[in-house]
Amino acid sequence: MEIILSINAGSSSVKISVYKAEPSSSRPHQLAEATIEGLTAPPVKLKYSRGDETIKGNELQDIASQEDAFKYILTHLENDPGLPELSKTDDIHFTCHRVVHGGDYPATQIIDKETYHHIEELSDLAPLHNAPALSIVRAVSKMLPNAKNVAYFDSSFHATIPRHICTYPIDQKVAEKNKLRKYGFHGISYQFITDAVASHLKKDPKTLSIIALHLGSGASACCIKNGRSHDTSMGLTPLAGLPGATRSGSIDPSLIFHFTHSAGSLSHAAAGHMHITQAEEILNKKSGWKALTGTTDFGEISSSDEEMKTLAFDIFVDRITNYVAPYFAKLDGEVDALVFAGGIGERGSKLRKEVVRGVECLGFKLDAEKNEKPEDEVVVDISAADARFRTLICQTDEQLQMARGVLGDRQRLMQKKT
Amino acid sequence: MEIILSINAGSSSVKISVYKAEPSSSRPHQLAEATIEGLTAPPVKLKYSRGDETIKGNELQDIASQEDAFKYILTHLENDPGLPELSKTDDIHFTCHRVVHGGDYPATQIIDKETYHHIEELSDLAPLHNAPALSIVRAVSKMLPNAKNVAYFDSSFHATIPRHICTYPIDQKVAEKNKLRKYGFHGISYQFITDAVASHLKKDPKTLSIIALHLGSGASACCIKNGRSHDTSMGLTPLAGLPGATRSGSIDPSLIFHFTHSAGSLSHAAAGHMHITQAEEILNKKSGWKALTGTTDFGEISSSDEEMKTLAFDIFVDRITNYVAPYFAKLDGEVDALVFAGGIGERGSKLRKEVVRGVECLGFKLDAEKNEKPEDEVVVDISAADARFRTLICQTDEQLQMARGVLGDRQRLMQKKT
Repeated sequence: MEIILSINAGSSSVKISVYKAEPSSSRPHQLAEATIEGLTAPPVKLKYSRGDETIKGNELQDIASQEDAFKYILTHLENDPGLPELSKTDDIHFTCHRVVHGGDYPATQIIDKETYHHIEELSDLAPLHNAPALSIVRAVSKMLPNAKNVAYFDSSFHATIPRHICTYPIDQKVAEKNKLRKYGFHGISYQFITDAVASHLKKDPKTLSIIALHLGSGASACCIKNGRSHDTSMGLTPLAGLPGATRSGSIDPSLIFHFTHSAGSLSHAAAGHMHITQAEEILNKKSGWKALTGTTDFGEISSSDEEMKTLAFDIFVDRITNYVAPYFAKLDGEVDALVFAGGIGERGSKLRKEVVRGVECLGFKLDAEKNEKPEDEVVVDISAADARFRTLICQTDEQLQMARGVLGDRQRLMQKKT
Repeated sequence: MEIILSINAGSSSVKISVYKAEPSSSRPHQLAEATIEGLTAPPVKLKYSRGDETIKGNELQDIASQEDAFKYILTHLENDPGLPELSKTDDIHFTCHRVVHGGDYPATQIIDKETYHHIEELSDLAPLHNAPALSIVRAVSKMLPNAKNVAYFDSSFHATIPRHICTYPIDQKVAEKNKLRKYGFHGISYQFITDAVASHLKKDPKTLSIIALHLGSGASACCIKNGRSHDTSMGLTPLAGLPGATRSGSIDPSLIFHFTHSAGSLSHAAAGHMHITQAEEILNKKSGWKALTGTTDFGEISSSDEEMKTLAFDIFVDRITNYVAPYFAKLDGEVDALVFAGGIGERGSKLRKEVVRGVECLGFKLDAEKNEKPEDEVVVDISAADARFRTLICQTDEQLQMARGVLGDRQRLMQKKT
């Protein structure tokens, strides 16, 4: 039996899912899931679930970094008597790491010294986003020397975006040298969504065309044509496209120079080898609905009548429409479904209502009741009976997607072990 | 009889149209038109037409600035024996100036010392774009002390854009202090288009809803709902939205910091009191299809099979689709027409073909022959007979729009004279 850890490190949290699998099986079976949240906004809290047992909201002391959080969770897993499958670190065969920016890597990579170095280099493009994963990769290679480390890139799914869509109309010598193009992110999630929706619709994923929305504190849209990414809202970095909890999304590219005269200087928050400008810090960390409303909780924003919260809600709906409609056109109106996913996509019934109302003229329409109280399934249809096109909710699962990936790719990964 | 000069100063050219009008008429009658081109790419050339007489391509010496060009044209007009209506500068009653950025001015302004000072101040938001007009305003007030100077702002038409569309999700204290929001431009042209299309369709402009594309070396899209701007592609400055001849359009807002480490430092090209960062210079002047293909001539790009020209063409079509489709949704599919205007919009049959093909699933379709050889009218219908929605070409005329504005507004303008 093989044990897999799927690790998803964000700027403020670390989430780890534990799976087991039979040696020749390609189906991971989840044993437990642990999340540590609040790294940048203490108190730091642990959530843990195994079978029917859950721990929720335990406050932790002395956990300040992603590495601290990883070590804490690892110890917690080893010492859980209800988890005999993982009683010592050598029980772990694979660790999967979600890495945001994979540059030109079109697929999963086993992390050895060489690839680690390369990932570190390309992280110059998105230091803010790759740093959490890299700090855990470093920790894992010390703490679990026998496990195989595998990097899953959020950008890989988008390697199929056509050249005229991923090229920026700028000096191409600089673009080539500095690797400046649209990459796109949330790709692990979009792969999960593609497979899950195809299975729900009983279609071959290779013939599936959908407009997918991954809406969380980071949010993006993706035009998936015949199972492959054709366009997406994020760009060179996750900053472009939709706004998020603390992110501006697309704005006039010259705005930042009218925001602060020191836009190009290095951010004080940039530690060690990370090179982040004040501009990147402001637009990624000090904007979005937090800047408008004071909260990052979109549920609170959705249910409020306050002026600035209503404004933040309306802005988000407007910007989402700006992607759904052109993706509809790019699919020539041959759309299997509009799919909502991510924390806000799954829980935001009011947001779904307003977004779908905004594209009703294209043929989308919700069943009000199904939208308010969707069933608890991986994929749920919330379309009205007379809708021309379906609208679905998908409970996306990046950790599961990575674990499946490891098992499906086991042979290649084992070969390289030597 | 009143003589009106409509002045349209760009970064590399100055275009002046001369109109006459009966004292109580609101219809300007064009007498002559002069254009000096090539200010930033010599040789500088004069084009002049009066009635059936035309001068084309005369090379001029010692014309280096917009002010030089204005003076040259003024002298040329005074000395043209075929233009007896304008034999001395005192014959000129009104000069209309197209000013790109009007900040919060919702309408036309008479330029006195106070408003000039205010326009100069708000030009900090778009120094690159306001400088040409301001230099001519300065010259005019010295050379034509008896003429009334009127500023027409490209941004004013967009004052009706709803708050949730024109607000950027950034720190609102800074946004308010530094006046950071979506303004939008090409508004003089969009007003002309609205009036011309309404007249063509025999509709009240107040009930007209169209998707308008002003496509020239600067390009933008506008969603016009019931005769008023509801959304547009340009933003705080003309940089946002569609790419142009030398302009990147919307890109990842953090791209420029990966393009050059000195993005925030002042540009060497920034003369005198203009504050332009290298970033703004690069993205406005050294990008766009010039950066991709080496030429700013979109006609050459359209008719070429070369790889980079095909790429530039495809990029432009893709980005235009990204605005047409959401504007269709924002109008709830109740669209009187998709309208092509501007030099490329009027002459680019291949571009129109590809853009309309990209939104065919929404109900637009061209008549191939009408598209190839449209009639020479202000508004021409090029839709297929079985198209659900119309597609039109409009020969927009910013100078005429300003002259009409002066005559329509004559009473208010004269009152303020005292």
